[in-house]
Amino acid sequence: MSAPAYDPNNVFAKILRGELPCHFVHEDADSFAFMDIMPRVDGHTLIIPKAPVRNILDASPAVLAPVIATAQRIAVAAKKAFGADGVSLWQFSEPAGGQVVFHLHFHILPRTVGDELRPLGIMADNDLLAKHAEKLKAALA
Amino acid sequence: MSAPAYDPNNVFAKILRGELPCHFVHEDADSFAFMDIMPRVDGHTLIIPKAPVRNILDASPAVLAPVIATAQRIAVAAKKAFGADGVSLWQFSEPAGGQVVFHLHFHILPRTVGDELRPLGIMADNDLLAKHAEKLKAALA
Repeated sequence: MSAPAYDPNNVFAKILRGELPCHFVHEDADSFAFMDIMPRVDGHTLIIPKAPVRNILDASPAVLAPVIATAQRIAVAAKKAFGADGVSLWQFSEPAGGQVVFHLHFHILPRTVGDELRPLGIMADNDLLAKHAEKLKAALA
Repeated sequence: MSAPAYDPNNVFAKILRGELPCHFVHEDADSFAFMDIMPRVDGHTLIIPKAPVRNILDASPAVLAPVIATAQRIAVAAKKAFGADGVSLWQFSEPAGGQVVFHLHFHILPRTVGDELRPLGIMADNDLLAKHAEKLKAALA
């Protein structure tokens, strides 16, 4: 019943190792945050642990605590930065749960009353993502 | 920009005080879990802190850590108990984020490949929820 083994060649592991670029937002000893390149709303951000964990099914309390603390900080900052009315947090485990990249991640989506999520899988403009990352970093500071 | 004040008369506060019934799953010093009475899938469970916190926008790291740890345990147990292939975790803050009851809660949904979420707002049969709570408690034990 346990989750499959962690694959160190997943995209987020490569981002953590600096082998792939990202629209960086935040880093501390245990967690890392960057813009989702296929945002469902403006400001859609991903928060991941630095530890090699596949998803919530194999995550320990020690790994989860600092990541959810960072997700909380990002939620407050994203609501402010994007003038949102609320926040949706998602975490998907295994393909049936909605997971696509197999390194534990929490989604933070700043939400506005009456907004609609963009369809899945649509890549955002790079310059726009860079601007959103700057906006979010400013709100975090 | 901060969240509105906590309302101690919300439904989950009443459940915590024993003033309203629930399909109980788990309790420890800091967290409490019970079946969602309007489940989007079989096994849809809610995990809440005992602390009076409205949502993620006003939650401290100290409140979040034990709740996400319990959500993790429930995720593993729910996947097992309901023969699921994965898990979706949701946490909604403020109405724009999808929040309906204003006491912080994490949703755990055991997911099966190809499943479809039931529509919002459909109350499940009480006996069925009681059976699901027993199944989940057995998997947690």
